[in-house]
Amino acid sequence: MKAVRLHEYHTRPSVDELPEPKVSGPLDVLVRIGAAGLCRTDLHIYEGQWEPLTHPQLPFTLGHENAGWVEDVGSAVSNVAVGDTVILHPHITCGLCRYCRAGDDMHCVASSFPGVDGTDGGMADYLLTGARAVVKLDPSLQPADVAALADAGLTAYHAVRKAVPALYPGTSCVVIGAGGLGHIGIQVLKALSATTVIVVDRNPEALEVAKEIGADHGVVADGSQIDKVKELTGGDGAEVVLDFVGEMGAEKDAWQMTRRAGSHYVIGYGGKVEVPTIEIISTERNIIGNIVGTYNDLAELMALAAQGKVTLHTKPYPLEAANDAIDDLDGGRLPGARAILIPS
Amino acid sequence: MKAVRLHEYHTRPSVDELPEPKVSGPLDVLVRIGAAGLCRTDLHIYEGQWEPLTHPQLPFTLGHENAGWVEDVGSAVSNVAVGDTVILHPHITCGLCRYCRAGDDMHCVASSFPGVDGTDGGMADYLLTGARAVVKLDPSLQPADVAALADAGLTAYHAVRKAVPALYPGTSCVVIGAGGLGHIGIQVLKALSATTVIVVDRNPEALEVAKEIGADHGVVADGSQIDKVKELTGGDGAEVVLDFVGEMGAEKDAWQMTRRAGSHYVIGYGGKVEVPTIEIISTERNIIGNIVGTYNDLAELMALAAQGKVTLHTKPYPLEAANDAIDDLDGGRLPGARAILIPS
Amino acid sequence: MKAVRLHEYHTRPSVDELPEPKVSGPLDVLVRIGAAGLCRTDLHIYEGQWEPLTHPQLPFTLGHENAGWVEDVGSAVSNVAVGDTVILHPHITCGLCRYCRAGDDMHCVASSFPGVDGTDGGMADYLLTGARAVVKLDPSLQPADVAALADAGLTAYHAVRKAVPALYPGTSCVVIGAGGLGHIGIQVLKALSATTVIVVDRNPEALEVAKEIGADHGVVADGSQIDKVKELTGGDGAEVVLDFVGEMGAEKDAWQMTRRAGSHYVIGYGGKVEVPTIEIISTERNIIGNIVGTYNDLAELMALAAQGKVTLHTKPYPLEAANDAIDDLDGGRLPGARAILIPS
Amino acid sequence: MKAVRLHEYHTRPSVDELPEPKVSGPLDVLVRIGAAGLCRTDLHIYEGQWEPLTHPQLPFTLGHENAGWVEDVGSAVSNVAVGDTVILHPHITCGLCRYCRAGDDMHCVASSFPGVDGTDGGMADYLLTGARAVVKLDPSLQPADVAALADAGLTAYHAVRKAVPALYPGTSCVVIGAGGLGHIGIQVLKALSATTVIVVDRNPEALEVAKEIGADHGVVADGSQIDKVKELTGGDGAEVVLDFVGEMGAEKDAWQMTRRAGSHYVIGYGGKVEVPTIEIISTERNIIGNIVGTYNDLAELMALAAQGKVTLHTKPYPLEAANDAIDDLDGGRLPGARAILIPS
Repeated sequence: MKAVRLHEYHTRPSVDELPEPKVSGPLDVLVRIGAAGLCRTDLHIYEGQWEPLTHPQLPFTLGHENAGWVEDVGSAVSNVAVGDTVILHPHITCGLCRYCRAGDDMHCVASSFPGVDGTDGGMADYLLTGARAVVKLDPSLQPADVAALADAGLTAYHAVRKAVPALYPGTSCVVIGAGGLGHIGIQVLKALSATTVIVVDRNPEALEVAKEIGADHGVVADGSQIDKVKELTGGDGAEVVLDFVGEMGAEKDAWQMTRRAGSHYVIGYGGKVEVPTIEIISTERNIIGNIVGTYNDLAELMALAAQGKVTLHTKPYPLEAANDAIDDLDGGRLPGARAILIPS
Repeated sequence: MKAVRLHEYHTRPSVDELPEPKVSGPLDVLVRIGAAGLCRTDLHIYEGQWEPLTHPQLPFTLGHENAGWVEDVGSAVSNVAVGDTVILHPHITCGLCRYCRAGDDMHCVASSFPGVDGTDGGMADYLLTGARAVVKLDPSLQPADVAALADAGLTAYHAVRKAVPALYPGTSCVVIGAGGLGHIGIQVLKALSATTVIVVDRNPEALEVAKEIGADHGVVADGSQIDKVKELTGGDGAEVVLDFVGEMGAEKDAWQMTRRAGSHYVIGYGGKVEVPTIEIISTERNIIGNIVGTYNDLAELMALAAQGKVTLHTKPYPLEAANDAIDDLDGGRLPGARAILIPS
Repeated sequence: MKAVRLHEYHTRPSVDELPEPKVSGPLDVLVRIGAAGLCRTDLHIYEGQWEPLTHPQLPFTLGHENAGWVEDVGSAVSNVAVGDTVILHPHITCGLCRYCRAGDDMHCVASSFPGVDGTDGGMADYLLTGARAVVKLDPSLQPADVAALADAGLTAYHAVRKAVPALYPGTSCVVIGAGGLGHIGIQVLKALSATTVIVVDRNPEALEVAKEIGADHGVVADGSQIDKVKELTGGDGAEVVLDFVGEMGAEKDAWQMTRRAGSHYVIGYGGKVEVPTIEIISTERNIIGNIVGTYNDLAELMALAAQGKVTLHTKPYPLEAANDAIDDLDGGRLPGARAILIPS
Repeated sequence: MKAVRLHEYHTRPSVDELPEPKVSGPLDVLVRIGAAGLCRTDLHIYEGQWEPLTHPQLPFTLGHENAGWVEDVGSAVSNVAVGDTVILHPHITCGLCRYCRAGDDMHCVASSFPGVDGTDGGMADYLLTGARAVVKLDPSLQPADVAALADAGLTAYHAVRKAVPALYPGTSCVVIGAGGLGHIGIQVLKALSATTVIVVDRNPEALEVAKEIGADHGVVADGSQIDKVKELTGGDGAEVVLDFVGEMGAEKDAWQMTRRAGSHYVIGYGGKVEVPTIEIISTERNIIGNIVGTYNDLAELMALAAQGKVTLHTKPYPLEAANDAIDDLDGGRLPGARAILIPS
């Protein structure tokens, strides 16, 4: 089969011919890939930024946003059958640790992360994964429609789902960053709450798109964004601020836009949160960490996708053209769309 | 009546003769003071540190930790009667705003703060307050036993109560700072959970006292405290870290001692929280703000006090000797005890 | 002023001339009534069914679903001003008891219930109420649009809001009864969740209306309703069943339609819940009681109304024609609409 | 090996010689039994009461409360190692269904129940189970100390843990039934809350034992129990009532003892809950179902046991004397103690 393999950092991956993986363990699931999303994390991996985090052994197959059809299953697999359409949770988890047992499987103490930690990923004709990673899809959904939701979309969903209990009618929620994650975050907010959604971005066009998918207000981040958000929220700031950027000042803005007794969700990264403890205690504001979602979060996000409440703009490339897609992403030629690789 | 009045910053308060306040409004409650706690905040007020925060008009009567007996009530007061023993919530709240209506009355948009914001406080023979500030006490409790719980103790209770749902059996909770607040925090943790309590303090004697009131482990903050806490928690850190210090490095330690998916509670203040967003998102840790507790929190803390589960060491001074108490507190001559002023 | 007064049970109320009430206490609010909803409870009061519950002293003015404009306020009223458009929470609460302090003010131990317990209600030109009962409205809302949401709508909102945390995407919620409360319940479910809403009613036309306002499925209660709900939920029943009927078998159906680990919400009344304890424990299902909502619930419902997410069909009558409205309601001549009385 | 096998209903089980089970699958765990609890459910199985529920194929080995030492593990087992002391969750769950993924594994759609559903249980020298059922014990705990907590104790723990958030200081919790489950429930309540515990039982001696382990009040169920509970709770009833009996009138009493806005937990069974819907809605009381606890609940209960906060009185019998133990249990000769079978 064909697979997009990273052999060396700072050198483009190559599309190699490899033997197909086979089911051997009782919980193995072999998936014929229908689509694999390309994500900015893939660029970071290629640049070696993940080396100190996961120490992957090279070469390995990239691709951590995968969907396809079940080709074969091990003897103990009861949740999917051959022929099922599936999306793959990015982590393969143990099912035995406290976190897995508590429904917090993204904190599993013994997980693998195909396409990232050296385990072969899904930019290939086939991917071998485990029963605990496959979510069966509604027949109305195709792999190419949803693959790019498997990681970035899931992260946005997880953060919004945690925030929703504080977003009763009459509240406001600020979304900083109307890019890939923010786009999903806005749609999930509209599907799960009646909060007023205020989107902040440097790009006025991105704000127009945000309004088309449901944002109530768009604020250009031109230096006046904190004042504008305060004005839109009666002077107080928002009950929840979802910072999908996490760097270049957004992480400072987010805190300032958060109302007394409210919460600033950190989702994007790169910058640093710096807050005097007196500000934290005198207003009882929180800073909430966010990681990728759980398996059940992914199943819920797929339920929203099947209802048409969450959609993505994607641009398909043949698997063999992986480097074209990487070039386009790297060169900023994919505004508002996610590249997906389609095996032939 | 006698009252301890602040006339000028950086000049000791004087004990003045004043007319007794009178009930005039329907929700007014006049309290004969049984005891008023002296707190480090009183020193900060005297030094002018609260001037930019609350702009109090001088002179006014100090005292924000008050308990006593109801002397007179307005026509609409139904929750207490003349003769009742009461402790006073530090804020007088409006009962009309969203926060008051939601049980978050410490965020009331129209509250006053006697003894701090220029409203006359309780270092006096009598204090005029409102029905929404008075908590009726169990007959077993005396004002002198509980007055010093009204603000510092209430803050510690509020933080612990928020943390307890995460502190199921098998978890650990770190308490940084075995002083006045930490002392109460430890007792409340033991009353409301079966978590393992690890106390961190620079002072080995304070750790011995902490163990006497229930702490499971004491760790001297001598530079090895992060390693020691990691060791006591299987290498992972604690599910909850309650930082009652909030400055001088404690606010850095607290984050490092917090486990993946755990929460760092900021209660003390003075320093600054500085954390790269990548650390926040990769481990999904939270930073939780904490302010003084609600009225209902104070009622619950009084239930614990009546059960003998929360106790305080206090040193009584006559009201007239307020400046002796201030001298002793300022001079570090009250280790492990709270000064309380008793009207004659 | 004019007022609809009940003088004797089983005798129609009369429209009497009364002196206007005046503000006397500091928290009093005088409201010029814009609209007063007529509700089936008014018929029950007229028939004497509430006599054993609230022992009202006759005569008194009916009307417990009220909205209008503030005409005058007491000296301590800070949440509304003269001229504000307001809707009135049905209870006037004390603001002092544990329930009021915890945000559960509908359980207030010292409340009054104008129009029901002998306190004069809002079927009049003016109503005297208290600051804790008035919710200021968005300028886009008129009293006649929302008055009928003040009690029935509020009850539906309260139940749905409690249920929403269990209604993540992919779940189902059954609504039994597509009448006044169910109508609101459906709209609130759609506004606050992405759950699949299955409505059960005896009347096929009511189901059509339900679908127009957002219901995903309609099931005629013709004896096959339990089977049909099971079929629509993969054989398991729904995570939440909201029973707005509570009698005539609905209360039995509701339990049978509730899935393992799910909850049956009792909102309507008249019948009896009878369930063997073995069924309760072997499936861990819950039966959840529901009462009218809180003040904050009403404020949130008004936020939904201002967003156009909750609407009502109403039929206006002049205040003087109160008995025509009562006749129409009693005679079943108001299908799908609520009668409201409008002072001239 | 020896095993206590049920061959025919209403005929005593026999102690047979069987081949030892062997590890074959990758998640198999072979446990050398240290102790197996005998429970009233075993009598019900013997009498055929579970036949219609689980249709077990006879013969099979009894024993669903098991603890021992790991003897062998499959290739994929990472949570325990040979030699570990373990207690066994009563269910072997799939780890793949929504319930398992959400931390509600006791609702697993594909679980087995050794010793009950025809799968061989633990009244034997060895038991073959799965990695998802074994909880590793603190070295201070021995199988004989804890085996009897694996099912009954776990059920009590689960109910109390759900109830604790409502049991803040100042509340009351009624425990109906001071038998095996109630005994554990009382200890867990005292370990996890500061609520006032009121125990109701027909047997005054059982109440004395309850007080020794921490109950605050004992009420003899002699017909005056509802009045007595009301009196002890200021006339209102308790915030939570835990009914460990569920029959013979306890299920009626429980509802009557539950305060406005409170919850009646159904844990024992045999009777029927019958409540008019008007009572449910006018007071907003809940009826909460309870089943056995989760795997994580069992791990938490073991943490309490290791802290000495939950203890059991047990009476050991050699495995061969299983029928003596059954006779003693059936004949009421084990008051206040649980029989456990110890392989030689």
